[in-house]
Amino acid sequence: MSQTVGNIVLIGAGNLATQLSKSLLNNGFSVVQVYSRTQKSAQELAAELGCEATDSLTHVRRDAQVYIFSVKDSALESLVAELGSLVRGALFLHTAGSMPMEVFRGNADRYGVFYPMQTFSKSREVDFTGIPCFIEGSSQEVLSLIREWAGKLSGQVYELSSEKRRYLHLAAVFACNFTNHLYALSDEILQEQGIPFEVMYPLIGETVRKIHQMPPLQAQTGPALRYDRNVMDAQLELLNDSPGMQEIYKAISQSIYETNK
Amino acid sequence: MSQTVGNIVLIGAGNLATQLSKSLLNNGFSVVQVYSRTQKSAQELAAELGCEATDSLTHVRRDAQVYIFSVKDSALESLVAELGSLVRGALFLHTAGSMPMEVFRGNADRYGVFYPMQTFSKSREVDFTGIPCFIEGSSQEVLSLIREWAGKLSGQVYELSSEKRRYLHLAAVFACNFTNHLYALSDEILQEQGIPFEVMYPLIGETVRKIHQMPPLQAQTGPALRYDRNVMDAQLELLNDSPGMQEIYKAISQSIYETNK
Repeated sequence: MSQTVGNIVLIGAGNLATQLSKSLLNNGFSVVQVYSRTQKSAQELAAELGCEATDSLTHVRRDAQVYIFSVKDSALESLVAELGSLVRGALFLHTAGSMPMEVFRGNADRYGVFYPMQTFSKSREVDFTGIPCFIEGSSQEVLSLIREWAGKLSGQVYELSSEKRRYLHLAAVFACNFTNHLYALSDEILQEQGIPFEVMYPLIGETVRKIHQMPPLQAQTGPALRYDRNVMDAQLELLNDSPGMQEIYKAISQSIYETNK
Repeated sequence: MSQTVGNIVLIGAGNLATQLSKSLLNNGFSVVQVYSRTQKSAQELAAELGCEATDSLTHVRRDAQVYIFSVKDSALESLVAELGSLVRGALFLHTAGSMPMEVFRGNADRYGVFYPMQTFSKSREVDFTGIPCFIEGSSQEVLSLIREWAGKLSGQVYELSSEKRRYLHLAAVFACNFTNHLYALSDEILQEQGIPFEVMYPLIGETVRKIHQMPPLQAQTGPALRYDRNVMDAQLELLNDSPGMQEIYKAISQSIYETNK
């Protein structure tokens, strides 16, 4: 496999970059260098991978076959332009849900997207095998190449356009980032009452099991669905000291009611 | 066990009443009658339980030992008062997260609360064994009795005051009802793109597994955490036709940022 793909340089050392590069290594790929804006991050990840580290774009190796950009969206464009002016003939990939593939246009000849839809934390190893990965390529040849190596990491590889990927990412923000924050708020409420968050596990588990059996719209329960104003008003009052939580409570309750009426 | 508790009348035939009464029956309790405002609901559940049904409070049996109120919070108070004037000497219980035990004061001599914290749908059987149940009793004798029979249904029975139970219920609304609605919105976004909701399962599963390993605050990822305005502005624009979803997006993103900064 590494013969087909060749040497990989990783641009970025965040959560996704960390888990992706470990998975690449475990699957026989050759990651030769990690670039990060901060030398410490680059070195930490490079040490785990057993490769070079740099915090300087001019010291990024120019002889690699693949450059994987796994950075904050706001940093992607300028990094692509800068590296594009230094490196010739390589394959450029990014891993971002919301960025179009065309961010590479004019900066590379062969480029594509590999978006693994998962929530990554540095401290938590993830098995890539079950992660749905959405790919795109600047040509059929590039797409085939990405599909081949993506298939080594994950059993779920789908081709998806940049336009649809934006919506997919938005849907993921709702289903993952936002729900996790609701868990955090729930935890906060319980902590103030001295109740351990663990008591929520069965409820959270069942909420997820239900949507494997019926559409979430049909699985909805709770005071907002019943439009039980007694409960809703009383709960809003409990949140008097947390205007941010009150706003979330109102917006979601209203949306539950509107969606289900 | 049924000798200790005696005959049970169920006031209500909704999701919780349905699953609770089935579990009571499976554990040897004797449910003798179901009351519901609508005869159809009462009959449907009574048929499953093999007991009487009524939609008239005056036809509710007065010889039972336990009356379990499992109704919309807004209906509870008046039902308790009406039945309290008809029935003497029995134990009155309710199953509501947000209602204080004292809703029974003046309407019964012996009363208490049995709040099983779970999301119930009529069509989905639930194993009560793993459901955390929060109990309260008007006296030590009543509390012991409730603890004893609650222990037959669930392995997780905790005593909790009405005041703390209100916050617990609020936390449950965030962790379950609200997250489920976010799944529904995610599903809606995907449907419009012709993408099946099933692609979200691995992400949703991992989001839940993470909070078993670290506090949700620490598990947070996504554009709002990074305060990636590029992504957030672009995603808000995708929601231009859904003001309700935009409001939720803004409120939660703001809260993620405030909570984690």
